[in-house]
Amino acid sequence: MIYQRVALIGLGLIAGSMSLAIRRGGLAGETVGTARSAQTRDTAREIGLCDRIVDTVAEAVAGADLVVLCVPVGAMAAVAAEIGPHLAPGATVTDVGSVKQAVIDAVGPHLPEGVHFVPGHPIAGTEHSGPRAGFPELFDSRWTLLTPLEGGDPEAEAKLRALWEGMGSFVESMDANHHDLVLAVTSHAPHLIAYTMVGVADDLRRVTDSEVIKYSAAGFRDFTRIAASDPTMWRDVFLSNKDATLEILGRFTEELFALQRAIRTGDGEHLHSFFTRTREIRRGIIEAGQDTDAPDFGRRPKSSS
Amino acid sequence: MIYQRVALIGLGLIAGSMSLAIRRGGLAGETVGTARSAQTRDTAREIGLCDRIVDTVAEAVAGADLVVLCVPVGAMAAVAAEIGPHLAPGATVTDVGSVKQAVIDAVGPHLPEGVHFVPGHPIAGTEHSGPRAGFPELFDSRWTLLTPLEGGDPEAEAKLRALWEGMGSFVESMDANHHDLVLAVTSHAPHLIAYTMVGVADDLRRVTDSEVIKYSAAGFRDFTRIAASDPTMWRDVFLSNKDATLEILGRFTEELFALQRAIRTGDGEHLHSFFTRTREIRRGIIEAGQDTDAPDFGRRPKSSS
Ligand SMILES: NC(=O)c1ccc[n+]([C@@H]2O[C@H](COP(=O)([O-])OP(=O)(O)OC[C@H]3O[C@@H](n4cnc5c(N)ncnc54)[C@H](OP(=O)(O)O)[C@@H]3O)[C@@H](O)[C@H]2O)c1
Ligand SMILES: NC(=O)c1ccc[n+]([C@@H]2O[C@H](COP(=O)([O-])OP(=O)(O)OC[C@H]3O[C@@H](n4cnc5c(N)ncnc54)[C@H](OP(=O)(O)O)[C@@H]3O)[C@@H](O)[C@H]2O)c1
Repeated sequence: MIYQRVALIGLGLIAGSMSLAIRRGGLAGETVGTARSAQTRDTAREIGLCDRIVDTVAEAVAGADLVVLCVPVGAMAAVAAEIGPHLAPGATVTDVGSVKQAVIDAVGPHLPEGVHFVPGHPIAGTEHSGPRAGFPELFDSRWTLLTPLEGGDPEAEAKLRALWEGMGSFVESMDANHHDLVLAVTSHAPHLIAYTMVGVADDLRRVTDSEVIKYSAAGFRDFTRIAASDPTMWRDVFLSNKDATLEILGRFTEELFALQRAIRTGDGEHLHSFFTRTREIRRGIIEAGQDTDAPDFGRRPKSSS
Repeated sequence: MIYQRVALIGLGLIAGSMSLAIRRGGLAGETVGTARSAQTRDTAREIGLCDRIVDTVAEAVAGADLVVLCVPVGAMAAVAAEIGPHLAPGATVTDVGSVKQAVIDAVGPHLPEGVHFVPGHPIAGTEHSGPRAGFPELFDSRWTLLTPLEGGDPEAEAKLRALWEGMGSFVESMDANHHDLVLAVTSHAPHLIAYTMVGVADDLRRVTDSEVIKYSAAGFRDFTRIAASDPTMWRDVFLSNKDATLEILGRFTEELFALQRAIRTGDGEHLHSFFTRTREIRRGIIEAGQDTDAPDFGRRPKSSS
C-alpha cells in the first residue's frame, strides 16, 4: 500500500483505469472519485469504479494523501482553485494532463503551502472516453512521465513514481518544456494530422463516405482511430501546447512539400531513400515492446486486452 | 474449382496470400509461381508456397488460364512484355497493383488478341513483404476492386470475381480513374503523410530517436506501421498516381493550414467542431467490419491472425 487514500477528480478513461490498476495492485487503502456530472458519478457508482464516489470535490479531497486531477487540460485551473482550500496538509497533488507547462502554470498558484505538486502524464490511451472506458491494463508496459518542479519534495516524487510502477508503468522524469516538445512530436502533431486527413476525406464530393469506409483498410483506417479521440481533450491540448505543436507542424509541412515536389518531378530516388529511412524507427518501436508486428488487420473479435 | 492453373508472377505478400487462400478454398487445379530472384524462388519452394515454383515467367504462364501480376506497379510493363508471347489463347490476365490506370496503360499494349485483361486491386495488406509475409486470411472481409476495360469479356470478369470471393473478399467493379482517386484518399495520401511525419520525428535534433520510440504509444505508433511499408512499392504508387495524390495532398495542406491558424489564434470552437465531425467516419468503419474498437494497444503476443 503506497497511499492511504487516493482522490480522483474527473472519472474518464484515465481516472477509471487508474482506479482499477490501483485496486489490482493493492496500492491504496481507499480510492475516492468524483466527476462534474451526476450522470458520470452514477455510472461510476453502478460499475463500482472506485471504493467511494462522492458528489463534491471538497468531499473527495478531504483526508486524501494523493489527489489526481484527471480532467481536460483546460479545466485544470478551475478544478485546482476548487480543491485548494480543502487539501490536507502534506498531501501530494498530481495530474495526468497531456501538456505539462500549461498545467503547471494553471494549477500551481492555487495550491497552498505544504502541499506537494508533482505533475505527471501517462503515455497510454485509447480513443474511448468516459467512466466505462477504463481498464486496469492500460498502463502496463507504457511510460509515465513526471515533470517535477525545481525544489520539489523528492519523497513525494518517489512515492508517486512507486504508484505508477505499481500500476504497471515505466517511469521517467524530465523537464516540463522538454515533455511538451517530445509529445508534440509523438502525439500532438500526429493527432492534428490524422484529424485533418479524416476531415478532408469526409469533405470530398467525388468520393463518398461509404467508399472511404469500405476501402479504409488500405491505410486510412489507422488515421481514423486517433481522429476519433475526444474533441474537448484535444482542443485543450492544442491550445495549451501551441508553440511546440506549431513548430513541429512547420517542419512537417516543409518535408511534405519536398516529397510532393519529388512526386511532381518524378524523383523516384528521393522518395525511395526517404521511405527506406523511416523503417528503422518502426523496428525500434517493436523491439521496445511499444507495438507488435502481428499482421493486425482489425478482424479480431473484440477483447479487453 | 474456378481455374485449372493459376500463375502468380512475383512472390511477395500478395501473391503468397493469394496462393494460400486459393489452396484453402480449393479454387484452382494448380498454382504455379515464379519470382525475379533465385532467393525468393528458393524460399517459396522451401515453404511450399505454390504447388510448383518455376524459374522463368515463360514456364509459369504456359498453359495457365489465369495469370496474376503481383509485382510493383513500376515493373508491370516489363513483366507484361515478357509474358505476352507465352500466354495461352483465351487466358485471363489480371494484376493486384495499387494503382489502376497506369497499370492498364503499361500492361494492355503487351497482351495478344484473345487474351482477357481484367485489372484488379485487393484492398488488404500489411507492412510486411516478401514470400514469407503471406497468410491465407489476408483477404477475408476485405474488398477487392476490379476495374474492367470497356468492351471486356463479362465472363472473364465474372470468373475472376468468383475467385476473389472464394478467397474471402467482397468484390466491386469501378472505373480505373475513380479507383485511383478513391485510393489516393484512403491509402496513398495517408501513406505519404505518415512517411513524412515519421521522417520529421527521425530528423529532430532536440528529441532523440529513443524518446520517439519510448513515447510512441501516444499516437505516433499508428503512423509508423504504415510508414514501414515497402519503399519500392510506394515509390511506384506515388509516381504512377501523381495527379490524384497531389490533388488530395493539396486539399490536405489547405485544411491543415486552417487548423494551424485556429491553434495560433486560439480559435477553440473551430478546433472542437472539426474534431467532432471526424468521429462519425470511425463509427462507420467499425460498423462495416473494417476495424475493431477493441482497445488494441500493441501489447498482445504475436499471432498470425
Ligand atoms: N485519453 C487519452 O488517451 C489520454 C492519455 C493520457 C492523458 N490524458 C489526459 O487525461 C485527462 C483526462 O482524459 P480522459 O481521456 O480520461 O478524459 P475523459 O474520459 O473524457 O474524462 C474526462 C473527465 O473530466 C471531467 N471534465 C470534463 N470537463 C470538465 C470541466 N470543465 N470541469 C470539471 N470536470 C470536467 C469529465 O466529467 P463528466 O464526465 O462529468 O463530463 C470526465 O469525468 C486529460 O487531461 C487528458 O489530456 C488522456
Ligand atoms: N503490400 C500491400 O499492402 C499491397 C496491397 C494491395 C496491393 N499491393 C500491390 O501488390 C503488388 C505486390 O506487392 P507485395 O506487397 O506483394 O510486394 P512484395 O512482397 O514486395 O513482393 C514483390 C514481388 O515482386 C517482385 N519484383 C519486384 N520488383 C520486380 C521487378 N522489377 N521485376 C520483376 N519482379 C519484381 C519481387 O521479386 P523478388 O522477391 O525476387 O525481388 C517479389 O517477388 C504491388 O503492385 C502492390 O502495389 C500491395
